[in-house]
This record gives sequence, structure tokens and C-alpha cells, in this order.
Amino acid sequence: MGQTTITLNCDMGESYGAWKMGSDEKVMPYINMANIACGFHASDPEIMSQTIDLALKHHVKIGAHPSYPDIAGFGRRSMVFEPQQLSNLLIYQIGAIKALCESKNSELKYVKPHGALYNDMQTDHRIFEAVIDAVSCFRVPLMTLASQQDDEKLEIADRFDVPLLFEAFIDRAYLANGLLAPRTIEGSVLTHRDDILSQLKQIVDYQRVTTLDGFIIPIEADTICVHGDNDDSIQLIQEISTFLKGKSNR
Amino acid sequence: MGQTTITLNCDMGESYGAWKMGSDEKVMPYINMANIACGFHASDPEIMSQTIDLALKHHVKIGAHPSYPDIAGFGRRSMVFEPQQLSNLLIYQIGAIKALCESKNSELKYVKPHGALYNDMQTDHRIFEAVIDAVSCFRVPLMTLASQQDDEKLEIADRFDVPLLFEAFIDRAYLANGLLAPRTIEGSVLTHRDDILSQLKQIVDYQRVTTLDGFIIPIEADTICVHGDNDDSIQLIQEISTFLKGKSNR
Amino acid sequence: MGQTTITLNCDMGESYGAWKMGSDEKVMPYINMANIACGFHASDPEIMSQTIDLALKHHVKIGAHPSYPDIAGFGRRSMVFEPQQLSNLLIYQIGAIKALCESKNSELKYVKPHGALYNDMQTDHRIFEAVIDAVSCFRVPLMTLASQQDDEKLEIADRFDVPLLFEAFIDRAYLANGLLAPRTIEGSVLTHRDDILSQLKQIVDYQRVTTLDGFIIPIEADTICVHGDNDDSIQLIQEISTFLKGKSNR
Amino acid sequence: MGQTTITLNCDMGESYGAWKMGSDEKVMPYINMANIACGFHASDPEIMSQTIDLALKHHVKIGAHPSYPDIAGFGRRSMVFEPQQLSNLLIYQIGAIKALCESKNSELKYVKPHGALYNDMQTDHRIFEAVIDAVSCFRVPLMTLASQQDDEKLEIADRFDVPLLFEAFIDRAYLANGLLAPRTIEGSVLTHRDDILSQLKQIVDYQRVTTLDGFIIPIEADTICVHGDNDDSIQLIQEISTFLKGKSNR
Repeated sequence: MGQTTITLNCDMGESYGAWKMGSDEKVMPYINMANIACGFHASDPEIMSQTIDLALKHHVKIGAHPSYPDIAGFGRRSMVFEPQQLSNLLIYQIGAIKALCESKNSELKYVKPHGALYNDMQTDHRIFEAVIDAVSCFRVPLMTLASQQDDEKLEIADRFDVPLLFEAFIDRAYLANGLLAPRTIEGSVLTHRDDILSQLKQIVDYQRVTTLDGFIIPIEADTICVHGDNDDSIQLIQEISTFLKGKSNR
Repeated sequence: MGQTTITLNCDMGESYGAWKMGSDEKVMPYINMANIACGFHASDPEIMSQTIDLALKHHVKIGAHPSYPDIAGFGRRSMVFEPQQLSNLLIYQIGAIKALCESKNSELKYVKPHGALYNDMQTDHRIFEAVIDAVSCFRVPLMTLASQQDDEKLEIADRFDVPLLFEAFIDRAYLANGLLAPRTIEGSVLTHRDDILSQLKQIVDYQRVTTLDGFIIPIEADTICVHGDNDDSIQLIQEISTFLKGKSNR
Repeated sequence: MGQTTITLNCDMGESYGAWKMGSDEKVMPYINMANIACGFHASDPEIMSQTIDLALKHHVKIGAHPSYPDIAGFGRRSMVFEPQQLSNLLIYQIGAIKALCESKNSELKYVKPHGALYNDMQTDHRIFEAVIDAVSCFRVPLMTLASQQDDEKLEIADRFDVPLLFEAFIDRAYLANGLLAPRTIEGSVLTHRDDILSQLKQIVDYQRVTTLDGFIIPIEADTICVHGDNDDSIQLIQEISTFLKGKSNR
Repeated sequence: MGQTTITLNCDMGESYGAWKMGSDEKVMPYINMANIACGFHASDPEIMSQTIDLALKHHVKIGAHPSYPDIAGFGRRSMVFEPQQLSNLLIYQIGAIKALCESKNSELKYVKPHGALYNDMQTDHRIFEAVIDAVSCFRVPLMTLASQQDDEKLEIADRFDVPLLFEAFIDRAYLANGLLAPRTIEGSVLTHRDDILSQLKQIVDYQRVTTLDGFIIPIEADTICVHGDNDDSIQLIQEISTFLKGKSNR
């Protein structure tokens, strides 16, 4: 294999008020892109500001991580909005974090929707178009699922002139249709270090992933999503980071 | 008296979810500047978008009307924040509405804080500086009380290179220190048409206002704040608009 | 026809913070049962207290009007909860209003769920059972749709020993399955005074209603739901009240 | 010294949505009274239900821990309410948790206000009276600061026939006026195990505490407040529990 430039992205800044979530300080040194919550499923302007500062300190690219408006449900519940309403919800959030970035002379680099909205835009082209419409106002790329590059999505992104960043998951099982297996299905979340690293290598070295039901599907990823919830996962992020650096230095 | 270019500004877009407030459609044709709520004391992204559309239709300048985060209290309660926290709260809100404006190829033109925050910045220079700091990120003017142009405030605005827009109230009584008389004091709110028009003329023609306790203080206003809560007040706004147009056409 | 004791019920106390909704003062004199919002789709403890006072003044029975937790969406959006979670959401709200009633030496008399929850419990028996489970803790009846008295619902209510109060709508069209026609369907909302009074008389005098698609279905109602949104609707409530009093005095 | 029956109380159920706070499972076995959050500064009906279950499992008395309405600020900010409004806020919360207790055939045993409200009621007798007024509806005691038993408070509690439970803090320094030293003052929070145990023994064995400025003030406590934030503090709770059991067995 030749040189790879696959990056690591991670959800960041998901604390809220008195409640802390994640280990942002420990994870930030090992990732390349920080998906920063925008106050609609987690975070507030102060936490956003601190998270931007932390990302800047570690030269990590800043992405908006907007959501359905649902703090109590952490943005994990689907909510029905008209496309125009959804675009406005997203423009509001992305504009807010962009202004916080610019107040520190830094830049917003991309947008990755959160939770139920991320899932909904993979399967509903009207939602995907509403997201693209909002993102197009900011002239940055949209991060979406690598295995779901269907023609209609590519056409929509093209029409609005929005570049796409494709991401893969190494701790989630895939279905044959390229979607992530829902968390309610057994085996949908990979928990063993060896399984996760094995899926990482298959994706990076062969641009393929073996689905939960045994198919092998193609997957061309620009970035890998990691999670830093506990000490074990942070240790794993370090290993993944080392593996990818080895690739890119070859 | 020569030509005057005093404008009318009005709080707009203060509905919330299923609840309607104000008569924006009826008032917008008669004002020059719309102070649009940013979702922290009222409004949501959809209402903000519709209010921006309405302002654009009537060629009304769009201002951000940010607040302490307090939907339940309509931003009327003082809340304690560190200056940096307060700046971030404001940058978030102003950035959100600015992005909504730009998504419609329009521009955010100024910032006027709401409610308790507006009052607090008149009396506390640390709060005034935090507001100025936030506004300076957007290269637009801050609207503040005409009768409270103290040297320290002017110095702060100058240091951050933020222009000031001075506003006067014609339906509120003033105290000798230039502050508005609190609503709890008898006579603090002018309700008679004649009293309101009389205070308007004193401000416009003589740059003076008679305070609740009988003093006459100077007041140089760029803009007059009006309220469109009911049919009588909308009728009054029309009269005020006609009066000011008569001045500017002379 | 003999004597009827059909009552009028109306949603009450649906203001929120600075936002007013409804004309509670004008409607309360003409109704028998007040469905009082519990703070999850509208209202707050202070508004609840004032609404209870108003109901007591007019000798109107007080019912809890609990909802999914969704102020921003006014409880009109379906939300997914486990049955036990939903029961806890309802026990919380009903307990809160019951305590406010008891602090005034009055009593909570019944429960009527609001909005999307009301609709969901008509069609999903798991949701109906979760509601019944919660209501059973308070030894009061549940108000539900008169035209949806299926065997399974009656069995559930019986098993938990919860009496049912059946309500009919006179300004909404019915479907042949006894459900209300969704508001998105043309003709689903009756707006003409004559149509509404006609449906009222058909329900009261003949225990029947003609559905949107021309069927005639049986409907035995204990209570009629009315709405007091504007002057016309308040005028209509007075006519309905007079009509029902005429019946009961015969 | 003879037998003591001083109990341990601890704030419980302060998670919120996706955010976890505290180690309730580890602390519950060692305490006697659980102050359970009521959804206004933390918690939701589901978390409240689970926390009640946990308390019942360990035979721990259940207390309501109501707050100003301020999830984003965790109830740590003072908010201005009229006494009647404050009473209604509290009746709502206490009624909600009482109903959840009764749905499990258990009982609400006492009320202890949270955060800023707890502090405000120590210094403002109007607030203390509003709290007492609310608690009197439920015929349970109010827990308050042992060192602040002034005559006016005792008279108010007596007038409303509300018993008082007095609590002492062993990890917080006192001022000469019997109030807790604000957290912003150096030395206000005791962090060393030996200092905390020393203050415990002084309170339990001598009904006295040495204030931050060197005075010795009397303090007759029914209960000691403990916190279970981390492994060290949980270890300490076990030591305190063992110490108090040794006393009561003598």
C-alpha cells in the first residue's frame, strides 16, 4: 500500500452545564478533526469556546456538530421538520460556532451532523438536501458516511457545490446496504480491541469492510470516527493514531 | 430646526414555538430598524428566518437582539456571568443571526442587547465592555441608551473600535442620572398619546427630556424605540413615523 | 329526548412565561371541566396556580392535562418512550398539579393527556396502558376519545380499575375508524358555526356522528371538547353551553 | 457522650439525560437520607424513579431536593421570585416526587432545598417563609442549617407547624454568623480527610464547630451532609458511617 492521509475525527465538547462528558483533554492530542457540539444536543457557548481553544492548541481542525434541538434526549431522537425549518436550525448552529471560531482568529473547517440527524440524512434524501442547503452557506465540506455514496446524494452535493468528506466507523458493524447496524442489534458495536483494529486495517489497507451478515462492501474513507469515553478507548485512540501515522510516513 | 434623520427601532420576532407575541406584520412598514430576538429570550431559528424575510420585504435594517439565556423569564432577570462567558453568549447569538441573514444575501447591521442585559450594561462598565468585546467581532455598531454617554463607556467603545448608536425612549420616564425609571415606579411608563408625542417632540426638536423628578437633561438620539403591542400602539407608531418623515423632508 | 348531563371541557392554562395563550377568563364561566396544562407542553407552576384559582372561582372541575416533554413543540410531536418511562413522566406531572390543587384545599378530578400523547394512546395500546398505569396511582378517571372504545382499551382500564370519561369533538371531522381526521386533511376542522352546532346536536340527540367519508358511527359521549381561541369561538361556547343547559333542564 | 442518632444525608439523583453525575449506587448503602433532585436543577422523572428505587432497596429515607428552575446553572444561581411564586415552584416539585414515591408504595419523608435556594433561605426570612409555606402542605419536616436557628425562623416554622431537621457540614468551613463560608473564600472547603473527620467529631461529641476565623459556635445537628463525588469521598463516607454507628451502638 502507498501513503494514506486518513484522518481521525472525534465528537468533542459534549459537556453541558454542571455535567461533564468525555475526556477532551486526553483525546485531542491524538485526533485531526474535532466535531464540536453547538448547543442543541449538548454544550453551551462557554464550553464551545473552551473546546475551540483546546482544538487550536493541538492544531486540530474544527468542525460544527449540529443537531436536532433536544438537550434532554442528547439529539438521539428523530424529530420531524420541514426542510426549510431544518436548514434554518442548522444555519443558526453553524453560524454560532463559526462566529466563536472567528472571534479567536480561527476558521470553521467542516460540518458533521450529530446523532439522529446524521442517521436520518443517510436514508432520507430530503433531509440530506436540507443539510446540504444549510452547509452550502458556509463554503465548507459536509462529513457523511463513506459507505452511503449513492448517486442521488452525490448529485445533491454537486448541485449545491458542497464538497463531501467520507467517514468510516471501526467500532460499529455495517449492514449490507452500507448503513451502520442499529445499536439494538447484537454485534452492532465492536468492543474488542482486536476486532476494532482489524476493521481499521481492512478499511485502510483494502478500502473494504465485512458486514454483520458476511458481505464485503467497498468503503473509501477520508476519515475515521473514534470515541474517547474511557481510559481503554483513549489507549485505543493512541494505537490507531500510531498505526495511521506509520502509514502516512511510509 | 433643520433636517433630522432619527430612525424608529422596534423589538421584533419575539414569538416562541406555539406562542405569538407582537404584531410584526403591522409594525414593520413603519420602522427603520428591527431588533430581532436571537433564541435566548424568545424566538427560534424558524421565527428568526421569517422575521428577517419580513424586514427585508420592508427595507428595514436588521439588528441582533441578544439576551441572557432565559426563555422562561423572557430575558428580564439579571444573571451573573464572567465577562468572557458573557461575550461568548453574545458571539454565539450574533453569529447565529448573522448567518441567517447571510443565507438570504442580506446583512446584519447592528446589535442591541435585550431586557436585563440592556439595563445591566448601562450601569456596569464590566458588562458594557463584555458586550462591546463581543460586538467588535462583527464590525457593526452597538445600540445603547442616548442619555448614558459617560466617558468610560465612550472610551471602551473607542478602544474596541465599535461605533455607538444612541437611542431614546418616548414612552418611558427618565431619572436625573439618565437611566430609565424602573417600571415599578409610578409614572415610569407613559401611556397617554399626548404625553408620548410631547416627549418625542422635546427629544427631536430640542435634544432634551424632562425627567420624572423635574430635571431637564440633554439627550442626543440617533433612533427612537417604539413598541407595537396592540392596535393603539400601532396607530401611534404611524403618527410618530409621519412626524419624523415630516422633519426629514423639510 | 330525556335529560342529558353532557359536560363541556376545555384546555386551560396554556400560557408560558411572557407568552399568553387563550382567553381563560372569558371561557371558564361556560365550561364544566378545565384540562390544565402541567408544565411539559405549556404553563409553569405559577400559571397552573392561577388557573386552578380561576377554575375554583367558577366551580369548574380540575383535570390534569399532561404531555410529552416538549415546550418548543407544544406537545404536538410524538416522542418515543418506554412504557415505564412514560408512566413516570405522567406521574410526575399529575402529582405536581394534584399537590397544587391540595394546597388550595381542592381536588384533582380527572386526567386528559394532551396533543400527540392523546392521539398516540388512541392507536397504540402499549401507550394507552402506560397512561392508565400512571392514572391508576391517583384514583381518578381518564378522559379519552368516545368513538374509540375498543375492547382492549376497556379491558386495560378495567384491569387497573381506572374509570373512563368519553369525550366527543364537535369541531373536528371523524374517520370511519372513530379517530379524528388529521388536521392535514381537507375538511378535518369544522369552522362554520352551523356545521359545529349540527354535529353537536347529532352527538347529543342521537349519539351518532357522520364521518368525513359519509359513514354514520355511534358515539356515546360524557363530555364535549371546546376551544376558546378567539371571540367567535367564545361566542360559540356560550351557545353550546346554553343548548346543553336546555337539554339538562328538560 | 451517650448515644447519638445523627444521620447521614446526601444529594442523590443529580444526573440529567445522557449526563451522569455522582456514584449513587456506591454511596446509597452508607447513608440514611437521600435528598433526591426534582427535575428543576437536575434529574428527570425516569432518573427520579430509579433513584427512589435505589433508596428503597437500601432502606434510605427519601427527601425532596427542590430547586430554583435552572438546569443550565444547576440551581446554583439566585433567582428572584415573589414568595407566592416560589411556594408554587416548590409545591410543584415536591408534589411530583411525592407522587412518584406513592406510586411505589413508599413515602416522602422530608424536604431539603438545593443550592442557591438553600443558601437564600438561610439569610432571607421571606424566602424561608415561602419555603415553609410550601413544605407545610406535605406534613413533612424541612431540613435546614443547624447553625442558623434564629428566633424568627423558629417562629415561622412553628406558625406553619413544620418540624425542622438541622444539618451540619463537615467538609465546609463556617463563618462566625453560622453561615457556610462561601466557596470563593480560601479554606472554605475542607479537603483533607483528617480535617473533615476532626470537624465531624467536634460536631458529634461536643455540639460545636470552630469557624474559619477562629470562633467556636454551638451547633446541634440531627444530620450530617456528605458528598460522594469520587472514590476518595466514598471511602470517607464509609469511615464516617462507621464512626457514627460506633456512637449509636454505645
